[in-house]
Amino acid sequence: MFTYTTKIRLHDTDAAGIIFFANQFKIIHDAYEELMEKFGWSFKAMLKDTNYFLPIVHAASDFKTPVFVSDKIAIGIKVGHVGRTSFSFVYTLKRGKTLVGTAKTVHVAINQKTAKKIPLPPALRKLLVKHYH
Amino acid sequence: MFTYTTKIRLHDTDAAGIIFFANQFKIIHDAYEELMEKFGWSFKAMLKDTNYFLPIVHAASDFKTPVFVSDKIAIGIKVGHVGRTSFSFVYTLKRGKTLVGTAKTVHVAINQKTAKKIPLPPALRKLLVKHYH
Amino acid sequence: MFTYTTKIRLHDTDAAGIIFFANQFKIIHDAYEELMEKFGWSFKAMLKDTNYFLPIVHAASDFKTPVFVSDKIAIGIKVGHVGRTSFSFVYTLKRGKTLVGTAKTVHVAINQKTAKKIPLPPALRKLLVKHYH
Amino acid sequence: MFTYTTKIRLHDTDAAGIIFFANQFKIIHDAYEELMEKFGWSFKAMLKDTNYFLPIVHAASDFKTPVFVSDKIAIGIKVGHVGRTSFSFVYTLKRGKTLVGTAKTVHVAINQKTAKKIPLPPALRKLLVKHYH
Repeated sequence: MFTYTTKIRLHDTDAAGIIFFANQFKIIHDAYEELMEKFGWSFKAMLKDTNYFLPIVHAASDFKTPVFVSDKIAIGIKVGHVGRTSFSFVYTLKRGKTLVGTAKTVHVAINQKTAKKIPLPPALRKLLVKHYH
Repeated sequence: MFTYTTKIRLHDTDAAGIIFFANQFKIIHDAYEELMEKFGWSFKAMLKDTNYFLPIVHAASDFKTPVFVSDKIAIGIKVGHVGRTSFSFVYTLKRGKTLVGTAKTVHVAINQKTAKKIPLPPALRKLLVKHYH
Repeated sequence: MFTYTTKIRLHDTDAAGIIFFANQFKIIHDAYEELMEKFGWSFKAMLKDTNYFLPIVHAASDFKTPVFVSDKIAIGIKVGHVGRTSFSFVYTLKRGKTLVGTAKTVHVAINQKTAKKIPLPPALRKLLVKHYH
Repeated sequence: MFTYTTKIRLHDTDAAGIIFFANQFKIIHDAYEELMEKFGWSFKAMLKDTNYFLPIVHAASDFKTPVFVSDKIAIGIKVGHVGRTSFSFVYTLKRGKTLVGTAKTVHVAINQKTAKKIPLPPALRKLLVKHYH
């Protein structure tokens, strides 16, 4: 499992003094971006040089314990499933040994012009399968 | 069902040209804030004058079709369940007659100091039950 | 002067209990988007159907008094200057009669492909000059 | 000068394909948070255990060249001035050797309860003066 470490910033929190829930989704996406770049895959290249996008079609999170500004969070991320047109990631968020949250995102491949589902590009599929545990 | 109408702003989108998924969670929270204020309930008063918070412990969204800058989105929101210490909201997001997404949030009442679960404050519970369909 | 009214949301605030400063920049951009659409101009059309962008090259804000969740803010916006390749907007932010902030943004027209400055597109220039002051 | 390195994330960009201007303000605040923590100072402790806040009363940025998703940005930050009740930071943002932007933030010390200006807390003042160049 790949682990991405981040720090909760003031802008991640809200007036209740803890992370605003939508920002947990934001930081798991950071982990996903970092993982994909570690795989040698580039968001910039996908957006500019390919005909596909990988929009998220489902996302869910549990929030186990409050997270504060300056907290260091280790986000574990692994490939959940790899299908014909879709794949998923599962995430665990820890502060030290404390599990602070879990999350899941499901992604589909679509054509940039038509927005229709397409089979996962073979190179991407290969990457994902290789790292599937 | 209460409906909150919003417009997708440039900052809600990302370089893929559509709404960034976490921002769908952000705008459903706007709908929740607006609904609660319509109920005569105030976030500012809760944060400053009470001993409880209502953090989200679970959130999930489906994303049905891409949403672009300037799109007008009508967010329907209704009370999902009302339990002893928790409640939920369910959301539908529409652009015109097109369903663009759905979502759910589960909230618990906790004590601001101890962060322990507490029974829903009676006045809040009453409000939620009254609007439960 | 065009006035855009918005409400401060929980996600606009941070753990200090007031609006996070960068979010004041976010909401003035909302006012700019609304003004331009009132002019009959479309961000979506610019991004998809033209060869230019209007990036911000300078932005500044003063913050006069703290702003809280649920506060209603009226953002006054007017055209500051219209030059050959650039223009600016000036903003005032009020809560009731209280001035809570001021801001300015300077925009330039650039070619989408080359990112080089270009003269303001004539139709856009006409709109801006017409609404100057 | 302290340098904070960050990577532009998809959520920092907008549908024009580059960083949304307000997010440049967001990432310079990340650099400020990191610098203060390097100084041994804590946002969490200020918010919970002291009677003061340090709100930003003025912020300005120049945007020199477009910044894209995945770009690594080195943010140089240094103390600008230290006054009786206020101080400032100045920032330079670089991608490799290219200057992509500059920024400035001015902060004042206020009492958390009264929101009135107060002299900079001596320990904070000492820290800032020590690192003033």
